Amino acid sequence: MEFSSKLLEKAVNEMSQLPGIGKRTALRLVLHLLKQPQERTGFLTEALMNMRHQIRFCESCHNISDEKICEICAQPSRNHQTICVVEDVRDVMAIENTGQFKGIYHVLGGKISPIEGVGPSQLTITSLVEKVKSGKVSEIIFALSSTIEGDTTNFYIYKQIADSSILVSTIARGIAVGDELEYADEVTLGRSILHRIPFENNYKNS
Amino acid sequence: MEFSSKLLEKAVNEMSQLPGIGKRTALRLVLHLLKQPQERTGFLTEALMNMRHQIRFCESCHNISDEKICEICAQPSRNHQTICVVEDVRDVMAIENTGQFKGIYHVLGGKISPIEGVGPSQLTITSLVEKVKSGKVSEIIFALSSTIEGDTTNFYIYKQIADSSILVSTIARGIAVGDELEYADEVTLGRSILHRIPFENNYKNS
Repeated sequence: MEFSSKLLEKAVNEMSQLPGIGKRTALRLVLHLLKQPQERTGFLTEALMNMRHQIRFCESCHNISDEKICEICAQPSRNHQTICVVEDVRDVMAIENTGQFKGIYHVLGGKISPIEGVGPSQLTITSLVEKVKSGKVSEIIFALSSTIEGDTTNFYIYKQIADSSILVSTIARGIAVGDELEYADEVTLGRSILHRIPFENNYKNS
Repeated sequence: MEFSSKLLEKAVNEMSQLPGIGKRTALRLVLHLLKQPQERTGFLTEALMNMRHQIRFCESCHNISDEKICEICAQPSRNHQTICVVEDVRDVMAIENTGQFKGIYHVLGGKISPIEGVGPSQLTITSLVEKVKSGKVSEIIFALSSTIEGDTTNFYIYKQIADSSILVSTIARGIAVGDELEYADEVTLGRSILHRIPFENNYKNS
C-alpha cells in the first residue's frame, strides 16, 4: 500500500498490529476516526491508555479487576471452597452469564503452549497449587478448552495437586443443547455416550 | 456483557464504536493489548492522536496529505488537465496502484446520500466546479462506485459542468478480468455488451 500521508500510514500500521486486523480493515477504521469529531479519537485513546496503565489483577483469582480483590472474590455469599480454573477473563464472563456457578475462579492467564513459548511459570499455577495446599479448597473444576494445550495444562496442574484429597473435575463435554447429533464430531459424540448421565439429572438445577 | 472492571468495560465500549467491531471482537483486541508491553498501547494511541490532530487535506485535490499540496498534485510531470473524481483516499490508492492514470485527482470526501444525511455542501463539489470553470481542465473522469448514491453524485456534478466544453467520462463497467461470464450479474453483463470495445484496443496501453 502506498500512502499519501506518513501520519495516516503510521496509524494504519499500528492498527494492523492488532490480531485479525489487516491493512485494509485498519485503513477503514482509521478513515472512520478521521470522519468523526476529534473527541471520538480522544475518548478511544484515553480509554485504552487508562485501561492499559491502571488495570489491576485480583490478588486472589488473578482476574482483571479495578480493586485489589475482584467483585467475585469479595462476595462472602459465594462458595470459596470451590474453584473453577479458567484461561482468561472471557471465560469468567461466559460462566458468570450462565448463573450456574456459585464458587470462585482462578484465572491462569493462558495455557501451557511450547509452540507459543508459554511455560507453566508464565501462568498463575503456583498460586493455585498454594491455595489447594492451604487446605481451604474442597473442589477444583477445570474449565479450559479441550485442546492439546488445555489438556496439557489440566494434567500439569493435576499432577501437582494429586496428593491432596480434594475433588477434581472437568466441565462436561458433549453435544451442545439444540445441536443435531448427525453433525457432531466423533470424539464429542463418543464422549457424550461414555459419560452419559442419569435421565432425571437433566431436569435438576445445580 | 458483565465486566469485572470499569476500565476494561470503557475500553471495550470505545473500541466497539468502530465500524464492524462488535463487543466480542473489541474485547479480544483490548485483551490483546493487555498482554502486550505497555509501549504497544502507547504507540497505537499516539499514532491515532497524531493522525487525527495533525493530518491535513491537500488544498487542491482534498486528498489526505501531510503537506499543503499532496505529493500527486505537486508532481509537474502529471497531467493537471485530466481530473479523476473519486470518493476517498482509498480510491486514490487503488487507482495509483494500477499505474494507468497520469492525471490528478479530486477527492469528494463521500457521495451524496440523503439517507446518511450527506448533502452536496458536505462534499468538495464547489471546488471541483470552480476548477472546471477556471478553464484549466480538459477532462473529468468519474470513478465513483456505481450505486444510486454514486450515480446521483455523478449526475449532480455533471449538471453543473455541462455547459463547459470539457470531456466527461466514467470508468468502464464490465466483467472483471479473470471472472467467469456465467456468474456475472445481468446489468454488468448487459453493459459490457452495450459498451463493447474494438478487439485490438484490449492490447493497447493507455
